[in-house]
Amino acid sequence: MDDVVKGVPAVWLRTLSKPMKNLFTPVSDKDAGEVFEKILEVGGVRIERIVSHGHTSPASGWYDQDEDEWVLVLRGSGKILFRDGSEHLLSAGDHLHISAHQKHKVTWTDPVAPTFWLAVFFPHSA
Amino acid sequence: MDDVVKGVPAVWLRTLSKPMKNLFTPVSDKDAGEVFEKILEVGGVRIERIVSHGHTSPASGWYDQDEDEWVLVLRGSGKILFRDGSEHLLSAGDHLHISAHQKHKVTWTDPVAPTFWLAVFFPHSA
Repeated sequence: MDDVVKGVPAVWLRTLSKPMKNLFTPVSDKDAGEVFEKILEVGGVRIERIVSHGHTSPASGWYDQDEDEWVLVLRGSGKILFRDGSEHLLSAGDHLHISAHQKHKVTWTDPVAPTFWLAVFFPHSA
Repeated sequence: MDDVVKGVPAVWLRTLSKPMKNLFTPVSDKDAGEVFEKILEVGGVRIERIVSHGHTSPASGWYDQDEDEWVLVLRGSGKILFRDGSEHLLSAGDHLHISAHQKHKVTWTDPVAPTFWLAVFFPHSA
């Protein structure tokens, strides 16, 4: 990708492009439920966009993941509850690191407007 | 972190807290130049917030990194130029994967309002 194309001024080759889907692109089918989309998966790292619209985790049970997760609210707001009883209200720009096997669930997301989450999953390092 | 506190109803323990600095927190000193802040470093993954305000890379030379990078514009806009001549205008929600040693530079950021970038660095996997 960083090869130089010989004999052609770089400026001729410049193209202003937007190759990847914008993370704020609305979900096409609002009735389809919570939408999980993989944005990138390279090596052990996986980046996902999640769009919630009043969705929460199932009432019983916890997420219990083998990977670490770093989660950021891009737009909207949601609440994450940990098994130890602590609960976090996250609005746009708020973020959390969730260690592997740190049990958690989403107890609330904004029912009025969609909430856009960014989640980065990566291998847990002990 | 996921221990249960025995004998105490979980609801008593709930605290709505915002433990981490919001990514849209303004830069305290606008005259300090472009600001790079480490948000998370766990295992081989490092997440940074960068706040630019009309800043660009030095006119000569390229970023040439040992790690892969995934970069997202959270707010504002900027242009990234690759050594192959392709240039990308990124606005809020736009993102790019920059492979290790894919030479690049920032050729423009919005001079009027700050641009907030999120950068995820991780080991390159061949």
